[in-house]
Amino acid sequence: MTAPISERLADVEQARESGRRKMDWAAQHMPICDALASEFEAEQPFEGERIGMAMHVEAKTAILAEILAAGGAEVAITGCNPLSTHDDVSAALDAVDGVTSYAERGVDDEAYYAAIEAVIDHEPTITVDDGMDLVAAIHEDYPELIDTIVGGAEETTTGVHRLRAMDEDGQLDYPVFAVNDTPMKRLFDNVHGTGESSLASIAMTTNLSWAGKTVVVAGYGHCGKGVAKKASGQNADVVVTEVEPRRALEAHMEGYDVLPMAEAAAEGDVFITTTGNRDVIVEEHFERMQDGVLLANAGHFDVEIDLDALSDLAVDSYEARDGVQAYEMADGRRLNVLAEGRLVNLATPIALGHPVEVMDQSFGIQAVVVRELVENGDAYEAGVHDVPDRLDKEVAEIKLDAEGVEFDGLTETQAEYMDSWQHGT
Amino acid sequence: MTAPISERLADVEQARESGRRKMDWAAQHMPICDALASEFEAEQPFEGERIGMAMHVEAKTAILAEILAAGGAEVAITGCNPLSTHDDVSAALDAVDGVTSYAERGVDDEAYYAAIEAVIDHEPTITVDDGMDLVAAIHEDYPELIDTIVGGAEETTTGVHRLRAMDEDGQLDYPVFAVNDTPMKRLFDNVHGTGESSLASIAMTTNLSWAGKTVVVAGYGHCGKGVAKKASGQNADVVVTEVEPRRALEAHMEGYDVLPMAEAAAEGDVFITTTGNRDVIVEEHFERMQDGVLLANAGHFDVEIDLDALSDLAVDSYEARDGVQAYEMADGRRLNVLAEGRLVNLATPIALGHPVEVMDQSFGIQAVVVRELVENGDAYEAGVHDVPDRLDKEVAEIKLDAEGVEFDGLTETQAEYMDSWQHGT
Amino acid sequence: MTAPISERLADVEQARESGRRKMDWAAQHMPICDALASEFEAEQPFEGERIGMAMHVEAKTAILAEILAAGGAEVAITGCNPLSTHDDVSAALDAVDGVTSYAERGVDDEAYYAAIEAVIDHEPTITVDDGMDLVAAIHEDYPELIDTIVGGAEETTTGVHRLRAMDEDGQLDYPVFAVNDTPMKRLFDNVHGTGESSLASIAMTTNLSWAGKTVVVAGYGHCGKGVAKKASGQNADVVVTEVEPRRALEAHMEGYDVLPMAEAAAEGDVFITTTGNRDVIVEEHFERMQDGVLLANAGHFDVEIDLDALSDLAVDSYEARDGVQAYEMADGRRLNVLAEGRLVNLATPIALGHPVEVMDQSFGIQAVVVRELVENGDAYEAGVHDVPDRLDKEVAEIKLDAEGVEFDGLTETQAEYMDSWQHGT
Amino acid sequence: MTAPISERLADVEQARESGRRKMDWAAQHMPICDALASEFEAEQPFEGERIGMAMHVEAKTAILAEILAAGGAEVAITGCNPLSTHDDVSAALDAVDGVTSYAERGVDDEAYYAAIEAVIDHEPTITVDDGMDLVAAIHEDYPELIDTIVGGAEETTTGVHRLRAMDEDGQLDYPVFAVNDTPMKRLFDNVHGTGESSLASIAMTTNLSWAGKTVVVAGYGHCGKGVAKKASGQNADVVVTEVEPRRALEAHMEGYDVLPMAEAAAEGDVFITTTGNRDVIVEEHFERMQDGVLLANAGHFDVEIDLDALSDLAVDSYEARDGVQAYEMADGRRLNVLAEGRLVNLATPIALGHPVEVMDQSFGIQAVVVRELVENGDAYEAGVHDVPDRLDKEVAEIKLDAEGVEFDGLTETQAEYMDSWQHGT
Repeated sequence: MTAPISERLADVEQARESGRRKMDWAAQHMPICDALASEFEAEQPFEGERIGMAMHVEAKTAILAEILAAGGAEVAITGCNPLSTHDDVSAALDAVDGVTSYAERGVDDEAYYAAIEAVIDHEPTITVDDGMDLVAAIHEDYPELIDTIVGGAEETTTGVHRLRAMDEDGQLDYPVFAVNDTPMKRLFDNVHGTGESSLASIAMTTNLSWAGKTVVVAGYGHCGKGVAKKASGQNADVVVTEVEPRRALEAHMEGYDVLPMAEAAAEGDVFITTTGNRDVIVEEHFERMQDGVLLANAGHFDVEIDLDALSDLAVDSYEARDGVQAYEMADGRRLNVLAEGRLVNLATPIALGHPVEVMDQSFGIQAVVVRELVENGDAYEAGVHDVPDRLDKEVAEIKLDAEGVEFDGLTETQAEYMDSWQHGT
Repeated sequence: MTAPISERLADVEQARESGRRKMDWAAQHMPICDALASEFEAEQPFEGERIGMAMHVEAKTAILAEILAAGGAEVAITGCNPLSTHDDVSAALDAVDGVTSYAERGVDDEAYYAAIEAVIDHEPTITVDDGMDLVAAIHEDYPELIDTIVGGAEETTTGVHRLRAMDEDGQLDYPVFAVNDTPMKRLFDNVHGTGESSLASIAMTTNLSWAGKTVVVAGYGHCGKGVAKKASGQNADVVVTEVEPRRALEAHMEGYDVLPMAEAAAEGDVFITTTGNRDVIVEEHFERMQDGVLLANAGHFDVEIDLDALSDLAVDSYEARDGVQAYEMADGRRLNVLAEGRLVNLATPIALGHPVEVMDQSFGIQAVVVRELVENGDAYEAGVHDVPDRLDKEVAEIKLDAEGVEFDGLTETQAEYMDSWQHGT
Repeated sequence: MTAPISERLADVEQARESGRRKMDWAAQHMPICDALASEFEAEQPFEGERIGMAMHVEAKTAILAEILAAGGAEVAITGCNPLSTHDDVSAALDAVDGVTSYAERGVDDEAYYAAIEAVIDHEPTITVDDGMDLVAAIHEDYPELIDTIVGGAEETTTGVHRLRAMDEDGQLDYPVFAVNDTPMKRLFDNVHGTGESSLASIAMTTNLSWAGKTVVVAGYGHCGKGVAKKASGQNADVVVTEVEPRRALEAHMEGYDVLPMAEAAAEGDVFITTTGNRDVIVEEHFERMQDGVLLANAGHFDVEIDLDALSDLAVDSYEARDGVQAYEMADGRRLNVLAEGRLVNLATPIALGHPVEVMDQSFGIQAVVVRELVENGDAYEAGVHDVPDRLDKEVAEIKLDAEGVEFDGLTETQAEYMDSWQHGT
Repeated sequence: MTAPISERLADVEQARESGRRKMDWAAQHMPICDALASEFEAEQPFEGERIGMAMHVEAKTAILAEILAAGGAEVAITGCNPLSTHDDVSAALDAVDGVTSYAERGVDDEAYYAAIEAVIDHEPTITVDDGMDLVAAIHEDYPELIDTIVGGAEETTTGVHRLRAMDEDGQLDYPVFAVNDTPMKRLFDNVHGTGESSLASIAMTTNLSWAGKTVVVAGYGHCGKGVAKKASGQNADVVVTEVEPRRALEAHMEGYDVLPMAEAAAEGDVFITTTGNRDVIVEEHFERMQDGVLLANAGHFDVEIDLDALSDLAVDSYEARDGVQAYEMADGRRLNVLAEGRLVNLATPIALGHPVEVMDQSFGIQAVVVRELVENGDAYEAGVHDVPDRLDKEVAEIKLDAEGVEFDGLTETQAEYMDSWQHGT
């Protein structure tokens, strides 16, 4: 039987202190979770609930677990990836009243799944997933628990994708909220979070400057818009590539150059892919690039830059800096790939993932979704559900309030006017 | 019986020359219509069709009529507002092969409706409206024509709104496309068109500068985003007011100050309303404003600024400049209202409405929608229809092509990848 | 003998009312002059002085004359260009206590110079010029007055240039301040004033949009920087041409494309010259331009675009719109020149010149310079003088104060620290 | 006698390989030095010269040493700070033909000065300093060398400051160029280099986001303008504090809020000092700050934030993250100081100093200044000299050329026109 992390670490006191400090830093910059913590402490909405979580156990997620526990829940948590756990945070979290943490960094497959089972052993009434590990394990191995489960919440694109497939096959037996798909997450995560953290990671990994650089942004969806806007805000000359004509036109009307990648390849100093598609930068593009270019991916998977083709073209390849692999072409040009083509804001040696504030927004939605399940769980049938708009709005309001931003309400006359207008007379 | 404009003007030759010159200027900056003109001339898609139009007869609209005629249609057109007709353009249009124009500026109600009847007398097979005058007249007075009508297109928010009401009541007897609602129109008209033309109209009406001014933008929808972005791009310090928390948060995260109007009122130098709602700036706000502020409306109707209340508060009121009415308060403060609170990019003495390029996009959609009716009219039932996405995309592609902007296509592998991803496995 | 304007106008009462209204509008947006007016009224610094002015007699200048009179001066004013006078403003100004205005629009050369003589007849002790007409006339024809003249102030680049030439030749017999050369004027006039008013004039003259346009800015000095920044702020894609490598590099590092004009000519949609040099756009460039381009000048003289060469190339030329002359090439391309190549923010039919706030800054310096002459005139020898830095700063402080902007002062410790640092130990 | 680094390292081969890789990365992004390397290799301008250098021995500086050696010089180099040397780079540099490197990290004072003497032992004909260590040591201890020294170059503000003091006292016996003061250095280093690297360092040290943050920038000189512009480009809401009214007005007209620090203190989320002065943020400001604020310095010395006062106010202080010291106030607020108030782009654990391209510009000037001394050294008297404008321009031209940016030249007619204009007729 897997024991909580606290029973496994050599110097648990020191780990707890270090983990607590990380959590404190995060909490200090998570105003939404902070406000919800106050509400939850006062109202104890989760009294009697058991919440099972499988998420990246680092400082920001730990705050989510902590505020759920503060609301009266018994929380059991483990990692959703054996490499993303911070043992010190796991230990600090395990020391929080009402929380048991099983997450440990670097465990093997067997131990990883044993920890998931340890969480399930708590017989959760609510699941919170980042990649649907809990939902999958429960449906496969513990179907008897489903009757007492109120519902779940899923953080990621991939998890939601897989859940929808289950749902379509009639295999999803309790309601799960698609936290990933909310406006609050898409507009802010993608535009500001991805944009800022990708650029900062690139700058600090390479010691290079943006001013006067030609930055080619592949894809002009939310992520691409964020990267383009932030790069332009550092005085880069932005080139956009797109496959959808209206997005291409949007980029053109914004004042950016729009080019096919085959032409952009010859002009760019830095290339950042954000398409969510594969094979965005391939052999014919590598062949036209200038010496010294940087290639980075800010899209979800590491398939946007065709590294196999690049390897084949290269006569030599070596680590040019930490987090930068240089591929030397036969003609002497060096193409520099960051973070092996994986998410550049997450996978360079110094990368820290999304900014704290962005995760605060995402976890704020997680928290109110869990509260919704407790309060109105009966209203939701088994299957994938969009987060109700009012909850998304509520989190926006909490954030505005926490930042001291006031805004207007509709008067009765105005509400009527809008109503009459939208619904006809 | 109403005669074409050419038979009514004193110096028709001179009018035609002047009107033609205006049309040439517009055409020179309408690349989408220009490209469609070439296609239509070559393929004659409208051979045998009679197109009835009731729109503002000025240079830009005239180009739409002209390219429809170039495609083989017999076009009959009149105004949709007696004050918006340019007689010279009407005359020049009437001289175009295949076009008869009945529009004349300043006619009385009787003559206005007689001109609409003159258009209907051509027994149109397709109607193109700006405010649904033709659709209404045909349904009320010429129902016998409906059988031979393939369909219609409507340009405006108001027209679409009224058509949807008719449709809901089961009173709309042929298909009409809601051109107003397309992405191409909303994204570009509203963000770039309204933003740029409102600011230029304000600057040239007042001889004032933006740099260092506090500009309060009421509403952060598409129009508000455009106005805020363009004002910020002129080095104004932008304050946003909103009633929807996520939009308020979007504005805050963009770096703008977000305030309730009651506070913004005391800080602003210029106020621009874009909410589409009423009573956005009212008595309590007027009372807090500084001496010399400018008040302008870029939303649809003149109800956003409560001019009645302002009049009541004022001890004096006079025209401070052409297009600027000053209201003097008892304490000596002067609040300056532009264009009587009507659309500031249309209603100041020097205002020109939307930029030519924006109308090119809108009329490009009109033109392909008319072509769609000819080619696939049978596929559409009576009622209001969204413009098919492929047509919206087509216009984007034509524009990009006309501007010499190339962009990428999906490879087969990429299309499969996206497909597999979006629809599950 | 030339009589004041009031004695020459038919309906002087109506003119005065109209002119007064224009002056009120200007005054409302001239916080610096407004603040100085209060100071001058209270302290009467100009008691006993006679101030002769030759400037554009329109609303903004009238405010300068008015506040000098409010400070106790006897002011006599006439125009510095027969076409720039607003008769109504001239009449309203003539009605101000202590001011006599001789300016009248459209007078012939004889009457123009007679009006200057009428001003000189007041035996001014201080001269305020826009083009050095008064200085020149006094030195040539009334040298006997020079003994009692304390000094003068000159507004323009051209005037200062000519005064410096006089000075070098030992021909300038009293001190004149080069108001044109102050930091306050160069930084704000040129960057914000020229940039904003040029773009607004172009937009409202052509009914065209900036978004997505390629705007070629010739010259990257203060004016060019302003035009580029403001155009970029309207979502244009800016291309800069330069002859000085560091400015070219500045533009490149800002994120703009930098190209030789020969290449930029083929890419631009709009061309705006700001170089202060001649022959910036010439035959070889016209030959490469696209159909429909706009050509405008925001530099001082109309020699930047070679209109003679353009005329020679053209097979036809006609007024395409008010303020726009189209030149048609043999291959059908139409190149559109705005305002005949003269200052586009001043010379299109709807142009209004610099924004009011910009002139407020400029005239604020004029006013404190006149006060300086009264207070410390003895300290200045005959010749051209830079405006003392402390006066330039004072005007900045007045503006900040008037706008309610507070800022920090140096503590004693800080002042010592800076001092020790700058002067060595 | 101090031996070259190669004779002191344990595994010199491995060190050389590692150092060479770092140098290659830098060289790949130093187009100016790369272009000069080609010129120097071809023309051997430094044949017969001995160049002594005391600079930070890391990758970027190593490239400067290498290209001087490539031009025929015998180069001897040591560090200008015992903690900034990278031993691997020192070893790789020592392996370069014509270069001897004595720099070693972490040596004690005695060894540090012995290394400087080792450099002087080469009897340099030219000195290149970063902090004037060589100039000082030669003047004090080896005055007999001065006769054969052609001249020197100094990189830093502090060094130039001290040299000017020596010069004023008549104690500087050979010409030294103030490389620090060139336009190329001030405009680009400060605006783009400091701005970008400070923000990236803060973001990656804290894992926080800029969007929606209120960023208080103290000082609006070149550095402050850069920080403000770049922060605004990441969607921060920028507040500027200033003591000079024209700079305050510039910031206000740019659209930023301008406030006294006493008010800004209560509004800011992040504070970045760039004033070059002391005591910019002091006790009264700490008292008003919100919980969780970040305090960082991007000015030269660590005296801008009064850490002593902060320590006195704090009831607790601890390392909140690597590079972040939290000071806890009695009321629970936590103020977070980055990098102990030292240069935030240099002194956080992950900071990398100025971007490579910025140092390329600076070292490009160093290189042409050394060439100037060889070619025209006789023309310069003993004392501090500004870098001749033509050299500054030359480096701008080299950079533009290396980046493939072409720009215009003046025609003869244009040159004459400008000349006539500037010098009068």
